[in-house]
Amino acid sequence: MSARRRNRDTISFLSDYGTDDEFVGVVKSVLRQLARHAVVIDITHQLPPHDVRAGALTLQRAAPYLVPGVVLAVVDPGVGTTRRAVAVEVEHDPRWVFVGPDNGVLAPALDALGERGRAVSLGDRRRSVVGPPTGATFDGRDLFAPAAARLCTGADLADLGPLIDTASLVPGPRPSLVHKETGVAAEVLWIDRFGNAQLAARPEDAADLGELVRLILPSGEVVARRVASFADIGPDQVGLVVDSSGMIAVALDRRSAAGELGLAAGDEVVLDRLDAKRG
Amino acid sequence: MSARRRNRDTISFLSDYGTDDEFVGVVKSVLRQLARHAVVIDITHQLPPHDVRAGALTLQRAAPYLVPGVVLAVVDPGVGTTRRAVAVEVEHDPRWVFVGPDNGVLAPALDALGERGRAVSLGDRRRSVVGPPTGATFDGRDLFAPAAARLCTGADLADLGPLIDTASLVPGPRPSLVHKETGVAAEVLWIDRFGNAQLAARPEDAADLGELVRLILPSGEVVARRVASFADIGPDQVGLVVDSSGMIAVALDRRSAAGELGLAAGDEVVLDRLDAKRG
Amino acid sequence: MSARRRNRDTISFLSDYGTDDEFVGVVKSVLRQLARHAVVIDITHQLPPHDVRAGALTLQRAAPYLVPGVVLAVVDPGVGTTRRAVAVEVEHDPRWVFVGPDNGVLAPALDALGERGRAVSLGDRRRSVVGPPTGATFDGRDLFAPAAARLCTGADLADLGPLIDTASLVPGPRPSLVHKETGVAAEVLWIDRFGNAQLAARPEDAADLGELVRLILPSGEVVARRVASFADIGPDQVGLVVDSSGMIAVALDRRSAAGELGLAAGDEVVLDRLDAKRG
Repeated sequence: MSARRRNRDTISFLSDYGTDDEFVGVVKSVLRQLARHAVVIDITHQLPPHDVRAGALTLQRAAPYLVPGVVLAVVDPGVGTTRRAVAVEVEHDPRWVFVGPDNGVLAPALDALGERGRAVSLGDRRRSVVGPPTGATFDGRDLFAPAAARLCTGADLADLGPLIDTASLVPGPRPSLVHKETGVAAEVLWIDRFGNAQLAARPEDAADLGELVRLILPSGEVVARRVASFADIGPDQVGLVVDSSGMIAVALDRRSAAGELGLAAGDEVVLDRLDAKRG
Repeated sequence: MSARRRNRDTISFLSDYGTDDEFVGVVKSVLRQLARHAVVIDITHQLPPHDVRAGALTLQRAAPYLVPGVVLAVVDPGVGTTRRAVAVEVEHDPRWVFVGPDNGVLAPALDALGERGRAVSLGDRRRSVVGPPTGATFDGRDLFAPAAARLCTGADLADLGPLIDTASLVPGPRPSLVHKETGVAAEVLWIDRFGNAQLAARPEDAADLGELVRLILPSGEVVARRVASFADIGPDQVGLVVDSSGMIAVALDRRSAAGELGLAAGDEVVLDRLDAKRG
Repeated sequence: MSARRRNRDTISFLSDYGTDDEFVGVVKSVLRQLARHAVVIDITHQLPPHDVRAGALTLQRAAPYLVPGVVLAVVDPGVGTTRRAVAVEVEHDPRWVFVGPDNGVLAPALDALGERGRAVSLGDRRRSVVGPPTGATFDGRDLFAPAAARLCTGADLADLGPLIDTASLVPGPRPSLVHKETGVAAEVLWIDRFGNAQLAARPEDAADLGELVRLILPSGEVVARRVASFADIGPDQVGLVVDSSGMIAVALDRRSAAGELGLAAGDEVVLDRLDAKRG
């Protein structure tokens, strides 16, 4: 057992399980039974049910800040089917292992961290760790958590199942970003709790648009001002900020831009030069 | 102090406190002040307020997976009254101690783990651990958490209060399951986050009903197909799956069965032979 | 490094980040990267967005029970502006350090714990600990968490920035409590999850009002009975209990007083002698 593998003492855990039921607590109980020393950090469990896209984007945003170790990501509408369950290392630092269903939820965060290293298909479902025989509907508890725990207690990746081709992993979502003659059309990636609408565009994608930008939204057009912080947005203004992921976000000061402007994840927003001819 | 008792380093914590207020954080702060080494695992805190039945069933479902140690379960509409506060060991392994109000919330999970061992009535309310004098409305903080902490720091159960008759504990809910000539009538135990409706029936209760089953719901009748996983349910089908507790659940694929079929916890669902004469 | 500072191994964390997004998980990941031994206790993250008043009152209620250590409180509508970011010690026990924006969220809890000791302005924003360059919208991650971590790994307060005058800190909310001829007018401080409405009045403020009290609410008048516990309130009664903070709260038994009586935080409730002449 290498020193690096023994360093795996943190499990970053993301799911769509919610916290109204006991699902998250049960997974953590299994983790603690099997890897007593590991600390679990909840990324979020409030992803919309079955929303692989939201899970993939959330994990991608969090990735640069996560503690090297096991990343357990379970958004798994295909549980119990033949969809693969996988564990994938990051090439340059195999302390990092991502564990979850092979449905695209892992890929963007993995790729944010570097080249993919080895990958395996998890074959060893343990229907229940200590409990009675049950159905095949809770792989977070019965398959992924035991695998994550083993990766914290000295197992090599290859101990968990047969090696697979990392290029065969299901890709994540590919948000739309289209450069146009006088601007850029970007998908809304995410509406955060404060109602800010993160776009699939970076500052360099809108570098030549000026301080005032025409926004073409599903609900109509507004003029937005580029600002450095939410509080720089006037009470009657719409702002464009560089958000905590380095992306452009549509924002209001202390109010919900998504709510007031009618924006939802997946919508298209066009950022256009204010002096451009419309046609 | 026995080695077994010293092993108590995990507190599994369930309540109806929610997470909008500071209640859970305050209980955990008290636990950490009094039992610094103990790790707290949240089962859930989102039980409907005062819903002892939901708390009892949730804890029962989680029980087979919990880490041996202290189980702290606080759904306590009778706080401040003469209702007993108790701590109860599991006979075959006294590392397990359940702590909470004696109102039925503990009993089903306790019984799922084995015979009841010793039980005590918690007499020693500490109105506040470090703070000012307050009311008698927060026994999670003032009575149960200090007891849980003492059980993690070497106290014997009998140190916490006078022994009581374990047979005198208030029983938990008794969900209804009635075998009929051509089927079974089962109570809906639980609607999970995904809208699956867990029934008080196991696969053996419906063993001879065939692959297609007539469901008689409060809102009408549907035909359901028995399947192994959610994804095996067709887009126009209702499925019956064996869920993660080993119970039969009414489900749709990636949609809420409870929402679309109008099911709520406590409803009765009849599973009937498709070829049975209705009368 | 003094023994006292080395004792900082608990970070009590409160915010308005919610748990739907990855914000809390990312802050905890940064904390764990920089202060591996520190345990984080979540007070709550469900404060209404930007609600500094609610954050200040919640932290004040929790303060007597918190573990001595770092208190990280982030409700920060002014993030990215010139509002100060501060760290403040408690005079009599410098294990306690409060970290957050200087907007009033820290002051009431600090003052509940004792005299203020040293205070510094946090100057050293680290735009991102390990990630790419981003905007200035997430000081919880980029400024406050690194400061909290340094305070757990041996830094002296003065290492974090220039000393400031503790008297210059922005004060917290001053809830309204007015003594009248025959009673008292008190602000509603907080509606808890169960619908209890906590007032800015203590039992001594209403000592001579008798067992039955006239309540003048925004929605009208009711007579309330003073009781020791929720379960002592009859089904048709409104109760006044001394709550878990030692304050008077308007309550119903197992139902929401705020919901049924139309009370919200910030409302005024008058407690009046039942035999007082109304004029």
